[in-house]
Amino acid sequence: MKTTLLKGCTILTMREGEQPFAGDILIEGERIAGVAPVIDREADEVIDARGMAAMPGLINAHNHAAMCLMRGFSDDLKLMDWLEKKMLPAEARMTEEDIYWGTLLAAAEMIRSGTTAFADMYVCMDAVGQAVLDSGMRASLTRGLVFLQDDGGKRMQEGIDLVEKWSGAGDGRITTMFGPHAPYTCPPEPLREVIALARERRVPIHIHLAETIEETVKLRDKYGQTPTEYLYQLGLFDHHHVLLAHAVHLTRRDIGYLRGMRGGVAHNPVSNLKLGCGIAPVTDLLAQGITVGLGTDGAGSATTLDMFAEIKAATWLQKLDYGDPTRLPAEQVLRMATIESAKLLGIDHEVGTLETGKKADLILIDLDKPHLQPVHNIASLIAYGAQGGDVDTVFVNGRMLMRRRELLTLSWEEIKKQAAKRAARLVQGL
Amino acid sequence: MKTTLLKGCTILTMREGEQPFAGDILIEGERIAGVAPVIDREADEVIDARGMAAMPGLINAHNHAAMCLMRGFSDDLKLMDWLEKKMLPAEARMTEEDIYWGTLLAAAEMIRSGTTAFADMYVCMDAVGQAVLDSGMRASLTRGLVFLQDDGGKRMQEGIDLVEKWSGAGDGRITTMFGPHAPYTCPPEPLREVIALARERRVPIHIHLAETIEETVKLRDKYGQTPTEYLYQLGLFDHHHVLLAHAVHLTRRDIGYLRGMRGGVAHNPVSNLKLGCGIAPVTDLLAQGITVGLGTDGAGSATTLDMFAEIKAATWLQKLDYGDPTRLPAEQVLRMATIESAKLLGIDHEVGTLETGKKADLILIDLDKPHLQPVHNIASLIAYGAQGGDVDTVFVNGRMLMRRRELLTLSWEEIKKQAAKRAARLVQGL
Ligand SMILES: [Zn+2]
Ligand SMILES: [Zn+2]
Repeated sequence: MKTTLLKGCTILTMREGEQPFAGDILIEGERIAGVAPVIDREADEVIDARGMAAMPGLINAHNHAAMCLMRGFSDDLKLMDWLEKKMLPAEARMTEEDIYWGTLLAAAEMIRSGTTAFADMYVCMDAVGQAVLDSGMRASLTRGLVFLQDDGGKRMQEGIDLVEKWSGAGDGRITTMFGPHAPYTCPPEPLREVIALARERRVPIHIHLAETIEETVKLRDKYGQTPTEYLYQLGLFDHHHVLLAHAVHLTRRDIGYLRGMRGGVAHNPVSNLKLGCGIAPVTDLLAQGITVGLGTDGAGSATTLDMFAEIKAATWLQKLDYGDPTRLPAEQVLRMATIESAKLLGIDHEVGTLETGKKADLILIDLDKPHLQPVHNIASLIAYGAQGGDVDTVFVNGRMLMRRRELLTLSWEEIKKQAAKRAARLVQGL
Repeated sequence: MKTTLLKGCTILTMREGEQPFAGDILIEGERIAGVAPVIDREADEVIDARGMAAMPGLINAHNHAAMCLMRGFSDDLKLMDWLEKKMLPAEARMTEEDIYWGTLLAAAEMIRSGTTAFADMYVCMDAVGQAVLDSGMRASLTRGLVFLQDDGGKRMQEGIDLVEKWSGAGDGRITTMFGPHAPYTCPPEPLREVIALARERRVPIHIHLAETIEETVKLRDKYGQTPTEYLYQLGLFDHHHVLLAHAVHLTRRDIGYLRGMRGGVAHNPVSNLKLGCGIAPVTDLLAQGITVGLGTDGAGSATTLDMFAEIKAATWLQKLDYGDPTRLPAEQVLRMATIESAKLLGIDHEVGTLETGKKADLILIDLDKPHLQPVHNIASLIAYGAQGGDVDTVFVNGRMLMRRRELLTLSWEEIKKQAAKRAARLVQGL
């Protein structure tokens, strides 16, 4: 097995309560074989990581990767204009090949900004799966299920096919979930069926919840319930693993319904800000013991997939909401972007912290830059100071995907060309 | 005079209502000699700017540059702990040489993230002025005046010396203001004197206003007034040019007092978020015709001086505050970071837009990156997608300060070494 030794970095293991320290990291095959102040041994490759911070790869817990093709296409619009006049018509034109190249564009961006794993909900998931395989990333894939016009039988079958075909693919890099889209797009009957099927097959569920105030109004008018009550009453939160995206508009009672759930909430602060949705009650969720990780949502709303922007926005919003700068301190928000997001993907036993035996998903951040000097407190500096472009090197499953900012598995020139061509076609006339 | 021709960029002139277009820019000596779809002529240097966006350099309208030495040193703390246990004791140890190197560190960071001019309020302004000269940047310098322990005669004299010695220095790159620090640090008598002196000498005034709720409480207890009423009643807003930093806690009546003021407000959203201060009423200020620009405040609170982060945070906060994604659209917030900030520094006749005859302060942003492709809408892409690290080339006063991310006027290795050494001494034991 190939061995790689990273020498002399500042290590943030992201294990709770563990202080950063200067040290070395040994990678053996797919896994971390050592994390210690000094590792003195031979290795096939030795990387001089002095002046770098090493931390677990960032994990994007909610994404629609292929929407990168619509990046910057419809900002500063009312929510319904954004969705109905821009996003949905553009998406309706997407072919399987568009989705393949859109996902590769997203992968290129994610790797370049230190993200090693992501949870994706989209369509044409064979194309998405292929892009994940080709990029070398790790992902949890979900076929989004909307049941508005029909019973969704064909889409449900695609969701089942995805689970059967792709679970464990890419040496275990790919896992899968079922994806009923949202309370407002899933009536009780089909939603009950998806939950029953997920229970039977022990498949986790990934769903949007309470992103906008419009959703709350819609559910109240239709069922006399909040979106959360609606899912609660259908038994969703008894499921063994549920990944909830957004959870912005929760009543105090709603938060009570979530208490004890397994899985947790993917907080997407940048998208919530850009669409004017509001501030998710992260502090209250954490106080109830609910796991909260971080995601970007699609680039159609968030513009970029830079998890460093989400890290900053997440802590800023809690500080703002409470008028209290001590909320969501640096170490905690960095854990949200790593080990807590790993829990949401159900892969925290394999990744999310730097420790011997775990899969080697890790990044090196180059601190040799004016905005990252001097170094007083490394966690603070990374949380509040680093940006995607500061990531120097990325490993996933022990394989180097980027070195000195060069992508090693993807051809940027080809992706750029394909993205430009396809993006122009998708939005033409919109 | 040396001529430089930038060929084939996407140009955002930042003139109101002007659409971005593909074109060339001619620089002749210190000034822009042409901005047009095609400029066909010889030049001493031709820069291939295809794949780049050209825009005016960003202008940081409120800074304490030398505080970069305390970057990341005291985050996630209560405001008073941050100030009294960390910032003030560290600042008390600063020598003139520390301030010189701290300001150079800030200049290196600002140039690398596309900022070409800044308004600085600090002490030992000869050191700051020297750093500005050496860096090649443009700046408006202010000696901060606190009148708590004494009548501040010595500090006032330093403020006068700064104005006399540094106004117009560096081929006009340096301008100056008087800097009474804030309503809560300036009692009526000395503040009245500063205003009178400023009027007599026709010197603009740079002052903090209503940053925290604690300040409002302090002023109410002491004078029975809001901070804005306090300044209004002293006649400050009749002055010919006032730069107000923050203006977060304003009543509706306060905003009325500011109506008609000359100068305007420097909004510092990242610092306001990180310290849990609140959301400045930017939309309301704009509605009253008050100029609003963008600043970072010192890196002691904001961590970085990246104006692209301020651009995002500024638009996000207005969208959040109104639950309305159409607030502060991309073009407008980009103008806030350029021409509107230029107005706050009183240099909008010389910089802040790309047009023939203005000083050549401009930047090239490299779009050949996964997070900046495809290009649907260039203003949107830059406002919501770009980060400091995407700036490729920087000109100030016609002189190139950075090319392909290489600093041309500053030695990063020397600055890094000096910053590390000095920063360690400043915070020792704190
Ligand atoms: Zn989503
Ligand atoms: Zn300030």
